[in-house]
Amino acid sequence: MSIVVQKYGGTSVRNLECQRQVLAKVKRPLQDGSKVVVVLSAMSGETNRLIGLARQWASCPDPAEMDALVTTGEQVSVALFAMLLLSQGIRARSLLAQQIPIRTNKAFGKARIESIDSRKLKKLLKDYDVLVVAGFQGVDEDDRLTTLGRGGSDTSGVALAAALKADVCEIYTDVPGVFTTDPNICADARKLDRIAYDEMLEMASMGAKVLQIRSVEFAKKYNVAVHVRSTFSDEPGTMVTKEDKRMEAVLVSGIAYDKDQARITLTRVQDRPGVSAAIFAPLAEKRILVDMIVQNPSKDGRTDITFTVPRADVEPTLKILESLKLEIGCEEILHDSAVAKVSVIGVGMRNHSGVASRAFLALSKENINIKMISTSEIKITCLIEEKYTELAVRTLHAAFELDKDSHKA
Amino acid sequence: MSIVVQKYGGTSVRNLECQRQVLAKVKRPLQDGSKVVVVLSAMSGETNRLIGLARQWASCPDPAEMDALVTTGEQVSVALFAMLLLSQGIRARSLLAQQIPIRTNKAFGKARIESIDSRKLKKLLKDYDVLVVAGFQGVDEDDRLTTLGRGGSDTSGVALAAALKADVCEIYTDVPGVFTTDPNICADARKLDRIAYDEMLEMASMGAKVLQIRSVEFAKKYNVAVHVRSTFSDEPGTMVTKEDKRMEAVLVSGIAYDKDQARITLTRVQDRPGVSAAIFAPLAEKRILVDMIVQNPSKDGRTDITFTVPRADVEPTLKILESLKLEIGCEEILHDSAVAKVSVIGVGMRNHSGVASRAFLALSKENINIKMISTSEIKITCLIEEKYTELAVRTLHAAFELDKDSHKA
Repeated sequence: MSIVVQKYGGTSVRNLECQRQVLAKVKRPLQDGSKVVVVLSAMSGETNRLIGLARQWASCPDPAEMDALVTTGEQVSVALFAMLLLSQGIRARSLLAQQIPIRTNKAFGKARIESIDSRKLKKLLKDYDVLVVAGFQGVDEDDRLTTLGRGGSDTSGVALAAALKADVCEIYTDVPGVFTTDPNICADARKLDRIAYDEMLEMASMGAKVLQIRSVEFAKKYNVAVHVRSTFSDEPGTMVTKEDKRMEAVLVSGIAYDKDQARITLTRVQDRPGVSAAIFAPLAEKRILVDMIVQNPSKDGRTDITFTVPRADVEPTLKILESLKLEIGCEEILHDSAVAKVSVIGVGMRNHSGVASRAFLALSKENINIKMISTSEIKITCLIEEKYTELAVRTLHAAFELDKDSHKA
Repeated sequence: MSIVVQKYGGTSVRNLECQRQVLAKVKRPLQDGSKVVVVLSAMSGETNRLIGLARQWASCPDPAEMDALVTTGEQVSVALFAMLLLSQGIRARSLLAQQIPIRTNKAFGKARIESIDSRKLKKLLKDYDVLVVAGFQGVDEDDRLTTLGRGGSDTSGVALAAALKADVCEIYTDVPGVFTTDPNICADARKLDRIAYDEMLEMASMGAKVLQIRSVEFAKKYNVAVHVRSTFSDEPGTMVTKEDKRMEAVLVSGIAYDKDQARITLTRVQDRPGVSAAIFAPLAEKRILVDMIVQNPSKDGRTDITFTVPRADVEPTLKILESLKLEIGCEEILHDSAVAKVSVIGVGMRNHSGVASRAFLALSKENINIKMISTSEIKITCLIEEKYTELAVRTLHAAFELDKDSHKA
């Protein structure tokens, strides 16, 4: 039995007209004899409407009750879409997370899928041609409703595709696919035909909001072929798959950026064992996500430590560091929120040298000063002044000739 | 452990202000050390909004998907109200039908409760002081969501009270209780302190819409004390309980009426065995509710048969009867929609005579012609011309001195 999973976001199901377009897309694999599992988000605006209500009712609404509230959004979507399918004579029914069940942990509002029981789904696929599953939601071990966080429907879709060993998980969205960089910044940005899971992870973690990061982790873990494409066109989008020779032949796949960054510097910290732990353990405890850590070589038994945090976390970070000042014996705590990260991403880097120097050279030609550098196997990230972000993205995009389709070259 | 079940309708939870009034009512039994199970309807207007959406999506929406859709209404109510309780430091949580579970048959849109598993509820009542349960809904044996029909939250409340052996099931509504008759018709109508289950059943089946009929059947079957009272006042309302000596001492408890009636007469029907079955079986098959059947004594082997049906069913009834005309050998099929039923109701009738003649005498004094009569142990019903309905109600109300509290007499 061939199974196709299709996930549609809130803008794709926001009204009857849009749902009719979705209907047309669902019919296609049906005509090829496949069964279709459709995963839907809430109609756009609905989740925010419900959150707004909750905030009237309680200044700090209970997270478990918030999940019980907002899961109604997807329930409305799947019931209405199932009605539409049934009115067309298509054998269909809706399914909620608890009816499958999709089990998650108890982290209300940001739950993680722990298991999906595929037996009931497989049984239902004998009687129905289309199952319409509520995305974004799950149930914990006590049958309380949970949600998977913003973008969680992507993860629902990929996890269902993994559980059902589906041929493909199509993620329908309002953009045509994954681009070499943000088309709003760089007019030459080109839609990628393929991208490797690891590249997609780096793109997503840098704020390219096409897919929820966790859905890509899931896809990688279970080797699910994910096809990111547009609800509003018939063009093929971008396949997110495991690496292949073809991808490795390409030096760089994309340029990503992240403006939600701030740099913190501790000057003249005592350079002794345990000092890093003394700094970063209290930050981790408060769930502050520290990225890019750089430590200068020690001088007079003193060193400067610099790292980045999300901008919203600058205040709590400074507060914690102030309380540690004596213990770590630093002179000054400096911070700068006018910074941005720009990254060059590509699995091809693994087998090629000279990528970093090519990036640095391109930036220097535009007089863009690099404040910090960090590298991984498939990514080079530079911290720069925020005002240069767009210029840096365009410069790097051109330097690596991303406007040209190197797969075809 | 003392348990109080409180059910609130859509108008009682329609906004934050109303829910705050509900909150005050929930706090009272808590202060007495009781646990409270609150059963809520959807915020008023919400169910109709959802049904309106469904009708846009499909001209004849699938009943199972309709239930999946409209159950979101109660889910929103219970999540919001639980947030409100929690924000006040009250140990509370919401519960949906499937989380208990409340099992029903598969009659989507008008399902009947088959069982309630009280084990989980009792366990939760050890950890929580208030459980906020979604009314109106259940799950069938396949875990599909069902609804109990209009007014179904009453039945949810009574069934939960029965399952938990609660002290009382309080039904909060927008009227102060059950009246001797419709206060809109009769200014002398008086709120009853107590009413017997059977009387309440007769009142409800005559269109007194204070309680869903099935909830009263449930209350009677499991002997649940039901207290019908107002959300918007602190006055006690009406206790619906099993009969007691005090009730039997009262001749008549109330006057009910029903304008949704039509009279059908078949003239000169062949008076032979099986002719009644030939008429009424096809009507029953089409689920037409036949009431008040009268057959005149036979003459020349022919008889007239008269009965009433709901007005909306006149057309289908006539159509069926026309098709039977030859078989039953009747001369004419007459119908009259300008009729109404007026009933005198009271368990006291069982032990008293003269109630019927007192009713007939009162009506005749006002020159109201009685077109049909039917009687049961606790009810006398007269079919009259519709235009006399209000006059008849007032006349009977006065004839049985219902404006005076006979319990106190």
